[in-house]
This record gives sequence, structure tokens and C-alpha cells, in this order.
Amino acid sequence: MILFDIGNSTVDCYQEGKVWSLTHAQFKDFSTKEKSYYICVNEAMSQYLKSKSHYIDLEPYFEFDTIYQGMGIDRIAACCTIGDGMIVDAGSAITIDIMSGGVHLGGFILPGIMAYERCYKSISPRLDVPINPSIALDALPQRTSDAISYGVIKPIIMILEATCKDKKIFFTGGDGKFFSKYFKNAVFDRTLIFRGMLQTLKHSKLEE
Amino acid sequence: MILFDIGNSTVDCYQEGKVWSLTHAQFKDFSTKEKSYYICVNEAMSQYLKSKSHYIDLEPYFEFDTIYQGMGIDRIAACCTIGDGMIVDAGSAITIDIMSGGVHLGGFILPGIMAYERCYKSISPRLDVPINPSIALDALPQRTSDAISYGVIKPIIMILEATCKDKKIFFTGGDGKFFSKYFKNAVFDRTLIFRGMLQTLKHSKLEE
Repeated sequence: MILFDIGNSTVDCYQEGKVWSLTHAQFKDFSTKEKSYYICVNEAMSQYLKSKSHYIDLEPYFEFDTIYQGMGIDRIAACCTIGDGMIVDAGSAITIDIMSGGVHLGGFILPGIMAYERCYKSISPRLDVPINPSIALDALPQRTSDAISYGVIKPIIMILEATCKDKKIFFTGGDGKFFSKYFKNAVFDRTLIFRGMLQTLKHSKLEE
Repeated sequence: MILFDIGNSTVDCYQEGKVWSLTHAQFKDFSTKEKSYYICVNEAMSQYLKSKSHYIDLEPYFEFDTIYQGMGIDRIAACCTIGDGMIVDAGSAITIDIMSGGVHLGGFILPGIMAYERCYKSISPRLDVPINPSIALDALPQRTSDAISYGVIKPIIMILEATCKDKKIFFTGGDGKFFSKYFKNAVFDRTLIFRGMLQTLKHSKLEE
């Protein structure tokens, strides 16, 4: 059995505890005789998968308690195994969600680090610099490249701190490990979304 | 005499206390017999202006005390009349600078609100929503459009608060008036950059 978490940039794959990533093109070339379950937030890939009957969409099997409208299935999968805590999926976008007593209290969305780079570049060629995630946050920047890295990283850390309060933080996603280093009460779990998919699969009885 | 502050999106114009904006195209069509002084951060417009001998570049006449490398002349003009305070120019980008005892202590750069909109759109069509600057910041969002507006506005307000400490805040730029409403110790001054240009012009003796 293989699980696929299909995002806007990449496809994350899971088999027996192992996790790896494919591009959309690599995923389309990927062939397996294993049973394959997926969740997908990318419209073009959703259309593509509708014609592939051996891939089973797990989205209809999720049961999740929230009043949030339009929550991506990847966020639901990441949140549904957490009773209490702040869930941060730092990928193409950075999604932040709060769970309390098994109930989803809401959340918000920041751009991912690569999206920030494109964003500054779109303003002016002078702002087209790579973001240094390890920028010092305790001193005011003294040059443009630092001014941009600081302008990205510091507000993210500040709003995560202010939102989590005393809750435990569960980081996942490509930049999750990096951000987890700033917090004492944090864990990084690359399989968080897959754990949600496995739990839903179990309850669905699709595998019986 | 007319002053021009030429940015990456627009050209702000100043004459006898009046301020108005032109697009780059409108500026190129604009014709005047008045003496014209400018500062410019846009490379293409700088090249264009080199062939226009009746437009005088004020940049070489600025004297400004900082160790910051590559500070835009618009930021220097905004800061040079402020002895103590935080200067926030909220335009295509949002630049934040700290002045203390007439010395520039450093600064950082956030994307402007329109750049944030382009940024989310570049991640996924599902995130292509207009930003609502008046989003409530005291409750967790419950839908995608609010999750994005909150993700833009709240981190900006938080880092401005944390940076200004007890300093007075001087806002300028297209979104400066909006952000100034969040702070008690703030003023909005659309002419801040022009005041710096006028001061420099006076010291330069170009007008004698």
C-alpha cells in the first residue's frame, strides 16, 4: 500500500514508514501494483487522477469537526490526529491550525519561504535575493539581503509564538524542521499528514 | 518647482504642498516648464531620465549617516528629516527604518499588500483572493479569504509593534494611512519623502 499527498509543488509518498517526494511529472510516470490512496489539493492533478481508477481518493472518508469553510484536505489530514496543539505545515504555503479538545478552532495561511522570494522579486529586481533562513533576529539588518530575510523570518516566528501560547506545536512540510528549531515545545513529524490518512483509511474499512 | 519621487509602481509628484500620483507612462507624457528635481529607485526610469537634462537627480546631494548598505534613496529621503522614530513607507514594498539621535540604526523590508496578493496567487488559484485590510485580528479565521488577510495584516502589525517600542511612528506611502490607524503614537505624512527632498535641496544650494 502506498499513500500520496499531492500538493501544488510536489507529491509526497509514503510506504511502510518511508517518505519520499516526486514532482508532478515524476508522479505521472510512477507505476505501481500496490494499492494506492491519495489526497490532492491541486486542481489539475485532481482532474488527471479521476481517469486513474487504481488510485483511490481518501478525501470523502475524512470526518473532521470544524466550522472552517474551504479547509484543504491536507490541512484536515494533518490536524485530525491531533487532539490539542498548533499544527504548522510549512510548504508552498505555511498553514497554521489550532486544535483544542479534538475540535478545530480555526487557522490562517502565510506564504511559504519560496513564495516570499518570488514575491520580493516581483516588486523590484533590487529585491531579488535568496532568503537566508538563519538570519540573526536580534539585531536590525544593515543591508538589503538581510533586510528581506529578517522581514520574512521574524514575522513568521513572532506570529507562531503569539498563536501557540502554551500549546505543543506539530511541524510538518519541507520547511517544518527549520521552523521547529525556534520552539522548545515543538516536534517535527514528516509523516503527520500520512498518519491522518492511515487513521482515516482504518476507519473507512477500505482495506478490509 | 516640482519634485518627483519615482518608485517601482508609480511616480509621486509634489508642488507647493500638493501631492499627486502618475503612472510611469503618464510621467513620460508629463510636460512642465518648472524646475524639476527627482529621486528614483526604478532602474528603467533612471536610464530614461539620464537623457532628460531638465530633470535634476537629487540623490548625489543627500548626506545621510548610516552603515546600511544599498539603502534606497526614497528610504533615505524619508528618514533624513526624522531625528528619533520609526519610519514606515508602505508602498509596493513596506520599508521600516529606525532613527535615533539623528543616526540610522538599520531597517527591514516586508512585501506591500498588493505584492502579498500576487504572492498567494502564485502558490495556488485557491489562494487568489483580495486581501481585506480590515480583517478582525482578535479571532482565528474560519475561511480561506480571512485566513489569508489575517496572515498578511497580523504579522505586519505585530512586527511594527515589536520594533517601534516607545518610539513615535512616521507612516508614509499608499497604505501608510491604513496602518497608522493601529497605533496611538503614529502620524501619517504623505509628504515625508518630499520634506527630505526639500531639506536636501535647501542644503544643496541648487535653487540659489
